[in-house]
Amino acid sequence: MIQKLIEGIRRTEAPIVVGLDPMLNYVPEFQKKAAFEQYGETLEGAAEAIWQFNKGIVDAVADLIPAVKPQIAMYEQFGIPGLQAFYRTVQYCKEKGLVVIGDIKRGDIGSTSEAYAVGHLGKVAVGSKSYYGFDEDFVTVNPYLGSDGVKPFVKICKEEDRGIFVLVKTSNPSSGEFQDRMVDGRPLYEIVGEKVAEWGSETMEGDYSNVGAVVGATYPEQGKALRKIMPKTFILVPGYGAQGGKGADLVHFFNEDGLGAIINSSRGIIAAYRQEQYASFGEHGYADASRAAVLAMKEDISTALQNR
Amino acid sequence: MIQKLIEGIRRTEAPIVVGLDPMLNYVPEFQKKAAFEQYGETLEGAAEAIWQFNKGIVDAVADLIPAVKPQIAMYEQFGIPGLQAFYRTVQYCKEKGLVVIGDIKRGDIGSTSEAYAVGHLGKVAVGSKSYYGFDEDFVTVNPYLGSDGVKPFVKICKEEDRGIFVLVKTSNPSSGEFQDRMVDGRPLYEIVGEKVAEWGSETMEGDYSNVGAVVGATYPEQGKALRKIMPKTFILVPGYGAQGGKGADLVHFFNEDGLGAIINSSRGIIAAYRQEQYASFGEHGYADASRAAVLAMKEDISTALQNR
Repeated sequence: MIQKLIEGIRRTEAPIVVGLDPMLNYVPEFQKKAAFEQYGETLEGAAEAIWQFNKGIVDAVADLIPAVKPQIAMYEQFGIPGLQAFYRTVQYCKEKGLVVIGDIKRGDIGSTSEAYAVGHLGKVAVGSKSYYGFDEDFVTVNPYLGSDGVKPFVKICKEEDRGIFVLVKTSNPSSGEFQDRMVDGRPLYEIVGEKVAEWGSETMEGDYSNVGAVVGATYPEQGKALRKIMPKTFILVPGYGAQGGKGADLVHFFNEDGLGAIINSSRGIIAAYRQEQYASFGEHGYADASRAAVLAMKEDISTALQNR
Repeated sequence: MIQKLIEGIRRTEAPIVVGLDPMLNYVPEFQKKAAFEQYGETLEGAAEAIWQFNKGIVDAVADLIPAVKPQIAMYEQFGIPGLQAFYRTVQYCKEKGLVVIGDIKRGDIGSTSEAYAVGHLGKVAVGSKSYYGFDEDFVTVNPYLGSDGVKPFVKICKEEDRGIFVLVKTSNPSSGEFQDRMVDGRPLYEIVGEKVAEWGSETMEGDYSNVGAVVGATYPEQGKALRKIMPKTFILVPGYGAQGGKGADLVHFFNEDGLGAIINSSRGIIAAYRQEQYASFGEHGYADASRAAVLAMKEDISTALQNR
């Protein structure tokens, strides 16, 4: 699956993933109004609004990017109808040829992690039949429980040609509280990074592994160190744009081959029309504003990579 | 909410939570057959089977215990129909007066953690209305992302009188891989435990906080140390029974007041009829076998506490 992502990055010349993390207040009034007229101010109405919002953005940007990353929390908050909108978004993006990274940050022990892996990346058996539950291409995984929690995902990655990105150093301000603690003279995230490289060695596909890592754009120095520790690991980099990361901060997340990293932007793309810079698109042009924001991000990153 | 749990423990004299973690192969053949006849060998059929299975167990044990802990992974693996069975199970257990601990192990950053908190413990706003998504009483939370990831849950706990249990030292064999790493001469899980006590100080209810901790029964020495570090923290203790924990291992998880811990058993209760000891109940007596297993567990723990 990592090779499918790499092909997409090469085709689009954009190591970019758009985070489909719709807050209801990002959805333009006209879309909310239409959804609420049909379903009322209900969970179903909210789910319809975010689905229509997503569809508009995906239609506008699908030719520019290799991948999307729907954040399941933003759907799960609307209960079952919200998760139906998540499922519909995943399916639609796959039909459009996009690689789908489910940002689910799951992680548990043994058979429980296996249930998550089966539900999101694999097939679950029901009697003599088997079914895909959510059917993403990649998911994000939390490593706090150790190898027991991660290996069931790796197993399914091998069986189904899928991939994962394991949280190593997250983009948020307090990520250092535990992740930066010094263990034998080195920060914990480096130790997690080493385990990611080890888990990944079991599922290589060409020069890269189907086991990737999450390292925040907000921590460029740490990214540089982790790039060396995990040379064959693809790094998913959140925190660009709204969280403060800039193109120039990102160059060290990439390998010499120009690969090895994919940069996520969520709010900066999907809510672009609410920024002063793109305000002229207006509410009805929200999807075109997202397209303009993707093009600007692509330019920023490609300039930074050329100048490194 | 912690006081509601404590009242339940006092009323039933059982510091016990039954883990509703149904694997499809735990469900008796007669129940699977009935569900598949109605819905086919489909995700809906699997969801119906586990719901009927749960209902039987809950009806048989509800008067003996204060709480249940459905593990969402076991439902999520069956996609949307599975999550509908999770929701139905949560609602049914609440109607029966049980405290529901959603074992969801979520955790993310900022607004994303808030979305999980809103979806599982609070109400989500849709226009002028608001709705509960999954509506558990407690959920489990993964702390790897630090305070940013946990505090949104604490905020909702205060607003809605709910609670959380934060993963500190998990019950699985490889939990030490990161959790036991020595930081300034102390294992990381102790540092996480200190933060749990700190987060919990904001949401005290009587002698205990609505912010609890998860510490595995399989690590009794660590439980003893953590009991002292977090004196006002309720500890949810998985790993009893099938994972190897015994009553005598558990005494140090409790405070002198006889409170402060609640012990989970999942497979050992819900799949009791498959054990040699309870085989005479047969498939049709699976729920009565679960009741017998709860009574045996209650006796084991109460004997251990009397002998400490």
